[in-house]
Amino acid sequence: MSAAPRFAPAQRVASFDQDVWSIFTPLAAETKAINLGQGFMNFGPPEAVQNAAKEALDRVEANQYSHPRGRPRLRNALAASYSPEFGRQLDPETNIIVSAGANNAMFATFAGFLDEGSEVIVMEPFFDQYISNITMNGGKPVYVPLRAPANAATQNISSSEWHLDIDELRSKVTSRTKMIVLNTPHNPIGKVFSEDELRAIGKVAEDHDLIILTDEVYDRLYYPPLQKFPRIAALDGFWERTLTVGSGGKSFASTGWRVGWLIGPEHLIKYALAAQTRVVFSVNSPCQEAIAAGLEVSLTEPLFQDQVDNYLQKRTRLSKVFDDLGLPYTCPQGAYYILVNTAKIRYPADYKFPDILDQRGDDFKMCYWLTKEIGVCSIPPSEFYTKEHWTLAKDFARFAFCKTDDVLDQAVERLRELKKYIVE
Amino acid sequence: MSAAPRFAPAQRVASFDQDVWSIFTPLAAETKAINLGQGFMNFGPPEAVQNAAKEALDRVEANQYSHPRGRPRLRNALAASYSPEFGRQLDPETNIIVSAGANNAMFATFAGFLDEGSEVIVMEPFFDQYISNITMNGGKPVYVPLRAPANAATQNISSSEWHLDIDELRSKVTSRTKMIVLNTPHNPIGKVFSEDELRAIGKVAEDHDLIILTDEVYDRLYYPPLQKFPRIAALDGFWERTLTVGSGGKSFASTGWRVGWLIGPEHLIKYALAAQTRVVFSVNSPCQEAIAAGLEVSLTEPLFQDQVDNYLQKRTRLSKVFDDLGLPYTCPQGAYYILVNTAKIRYPADYKFPDILDQRGDDFKMCYWLTKEIGVCSIPPSEFYTKEHWTLAKDFARFAFCKTDDVLDQAVERLRELKKYIVE
Repeated sequence: MSAAPRFAPAQRVASFDQDVWSIFTPLAAETKAINLGQGFMNFGPPEAVQNAAKEALDRVEANQYSHPRGRPRLRNALAASYSPEFGRQLDPETNIIVSAGANNAMFATFAGFLDEGSEVIVMEPFFDQYISNITMNGGKPVYVPLRAPANAATQNISSSEWHLDIDELRSKVTSRTKMIVLNTPHNPIGKVFSEDELRAIGKVAEDHDLIILTDEVYDRLYYPPLQKFPRIAALDGFWERTLTVGSGGKSFASTGWRVGWLIGPEHLIKYALAAQTRVVFSVNSPCQEAIAAGLEVSLTEPLFQDQVDNYLQKRTRLSKVFDDLGLPYTCPQGAYYILVNTAKIRYPADYKFPDILDQRGDDFKMCYWLTKEIGVCSIPPSEFYTKEHWTLAKDFARFAFCKTDDVLDQAVERLRELKKYIVE
Repeated sequence: MSAAPRFAPAQRVASFDQDVWSIFTPLAAETKAINLGQGFMNFGPPEAVQNAAKEALDRVEANQYSHPRGRPRLRNALAASYSPEFGRQLDPETNIIVSAGANNAMFATFAGFLDEGSEVIVMEPFFDQYISNITMNGGKPVYVPLRAPANAATQNISSSEWHLDIDELRSKVTSRTKMIVLNTPHNPIGKVFSEDELRAIGKVAEDHDLIILTDEVYDRLYYPPLQKFPRIAALDGFWERTLTVGSGGKSFASTGWRVGWLIGPEHLIKYALAAQTRVVFSVNSPCQEAIAAGLEVSLTEPLFQDQVDNYLQKRTRLSKVFDDLGLPYTCPQGAYYILVNTAKIRYPADYKFPDILDQRGDDFKMCYWLTKEIGVCSIPPSEFYTKEHWTLAKDFARFAFCKTDDVLDQAVERLRELKKYIVE
C-alpha cells in the first residue's frame, strides 16, 4: 500500500536531499560536541524583548490572529526603525509585511513572482533554502560565483576580498530572468557588499528590468571599520525594484520566534503579501509584539551597538585560535560566521566515515571528523554550492560565533587539540 | 516603472480576489460592530497554557530554532493525546509534524503531493484557503456540494442533515485525481461526519487509490448527543492514505500563536515535511512548548470537556435569538459557527452598498448591512463556494460564537432589532 503510485510525492519535493542541518545538529547532540554549526544563539533575547513577549501573552487580543500584513505596532516600529536606513519615509500600510521568519518572506516573494521557468540569479555560496524556495515555485536558479582571492589558502583575508565579477553576472541574464537574489551581510562569507558593488549589481537589474530580492537578515551585525551598512534599496532609485528581507530572530537573538519582514514598494509588496496570506495566513502574535518592543527600545537605547560590541569581541575570541593554529580564515565584515581554510588539517587516512557522506563534498568529511574527534561542530559550506562547484568549498568549514563566551572558550580549548593534525 | 512587465506577479497569485476577512474584519472595527465574523476568541488561552508560554520564554533554548518536525515535547504530547483517538500508537518521530498553523499544514501537504494538473476533490462549502493553497501548488480543485435538506429554509435543522451524495463524489474522480479534502467538524456548517459517511468517502479514496487530507481543527469541539468524534484515519485501514490536520489555536483559544500539526503514516508525512521545512523551516518555539503543556494537562484534567460545556452554553445563548426571531438555522454538531437563514430579512430596497460588493454574492450585501446597521458582523458564506454556486449561499450568514458571554449577550440584544425587518 505504501508504495502505491498515487502516494508519490510532487516533483517539486521528490529530489530533496537530507539537509545539512539534519545531519550535523543531531550529530553534535549525540557526540556532545560544541555546536558552532547552526547559527542560533545559546543566549536569549534582550530582557526588554522577553518581558514584552510575556506582557503580550497577558493581553487577550495579542493571542489571537494578527492581520496577514502583520500587527500595526510591529509595522509602525519597523517603519520608525528602517525609514532612516532606507532614506525614505516607509508607509507601514503598504511598504512592510511581517513574515513567519525571514525564510518565509523569501518563499512568499518567489511564490508571488515566479512562473514556471522563471530564472533567478543566485550567488554561490548561497543560503541553502533559497534554492528549494525557488524551485518549489517553478523557478530555475542560475548561479554566479563569489570568488575568494588567490591568497585565501595561505593567509587571512577580509570578506570584502571575495569578489563578484559583474560581467559574469550580466552574462547570466536571459529573457527568462526575473530576479537577482543578493545576501548582505553574506552567509557564510560575512561579506558586506560596498556601495560601488551594489550600484553595479543594481545597474544590471535596471538594464534588464529585474527585481532585486536582498536578504539582509544580518543587517544589524556589521563590524568596524564599517561605519554604515549600505543597502541597495537606498541607492540610485533601485527602491522601485527591490524587496528587502529582515529578521527579528537575528536582530534580537530569538531565532525560534519566526518573526521576519519584507520591505519594499507597494507594487512589489502586494504580490508577496498575496502569496504570504495563503501560505501561513498570519504570524505569531505575541512575538510580533515583543519584536516591536525591541525595535522601539532600539530607537532610544544603543541596543544594536551593544550587540555589535559583544559580537566583535566574540569574533576575536574565536578567530584567535585559528591564528594560533596557522589556519587561514576569512575575517567577516558582518554576520557571525568564520569561514576557515582546513586544507592543512590531516585526519587519519583510515578514518571510517558513514556512507551517507560519500554522496557529499569532501568538506562534509572534515566537518564530521571535527565534530566527532575534536568535539566542535561546524558546517561544511559545499551545502551552499551546486554539486559541480563542491570542490570550491572542499577546504572550508563554517564556524558560528553567536555563542556565550564560556562556550567559545571551550571550543577554543578543544580546537587547540588540532595542532597535532596540522601539516605545514 | 511600477508597471514594468518584469514586475508582474506570478500567475498563481495574479487572480486572487480580496479575501472576505480583509473586507469584514476592518468593517467591523470601523463600525464598532460586534464581530461574530472571523472565528477567533475574545478570550485568552487557559492559564496553564499561558503560564507555560511564559516559562518557555525564560529558557534559552526555547527561544531558538526548533527542529523542522517540531519540538520533541510537543510531538510527545501529541502522540500521548492522539494515540487513543486514532486507536494506534503514534510515533512522535515519524507520524507527527508541527506546522505554522493548520493552514500551513494544508499548504505543505499540497506542496508535497500535487503536480501541475493534479486534481483535488473539495466539498462545497469549503474553507476559503484550501482553494488558493491547491492552485498555488499547481493543483486543480474539483467541487462536490454538501446539500442542505429542502426544509432548511423554513425550520431549524441539524448539521447532520447536510448531505454528501457519494455517487456524485465518485463521479468527480478522474485519472488525475490525487486527493480528497475532508473537513470535520465542518466550517461553516458544523457537520460532524458520521462513521458511515466516513466509510463511504474512504471507500471511494481506496477504490481510486487517493490520499485523504482531513482538516479536523475543531476536533475538540463537538456537542452532545455525540459521544465520540469519528476520525476517518481510525477506520477500515484508511490510516495508510490519510493525513489529519489539527490546531493548537482552536484547541487552546490561541489562534494567533500559529501552532498546528499534521498526523499520518510516515510514507505520507515525510513529503509534507520535505515541503514544510522549506516553506517555513520551523515553528514558533515558546508557543510549541505551551501547547505541549496544554495537551499534557488535558491528559489528566477535563480541560477539553470544560471547553465543550462552555461552548455548548454559548451556542444556546446565541441561537436563542434566532429562534425568537423565527430565523431558521443549522444547529452545529461541532465547531463554533451557526449558519443562519436570512431570507426573511428585508433591508431597505434603496440601501446604498459600496461598489466592491457588486462583484460578490448577495449574502455579502446582507452581511454588510447587518454589520453596519444592526451592529453585528457575520461572514457571507458564498466566500466558501465557487462563483457558479454563490446562489446556494445567498440566504445564509455565518455567526461565530467563540466569544465571551457578555459579548454574545450584546450581540443578541442588537440582533433583536432585526424584528422589524423580518417578513413572514
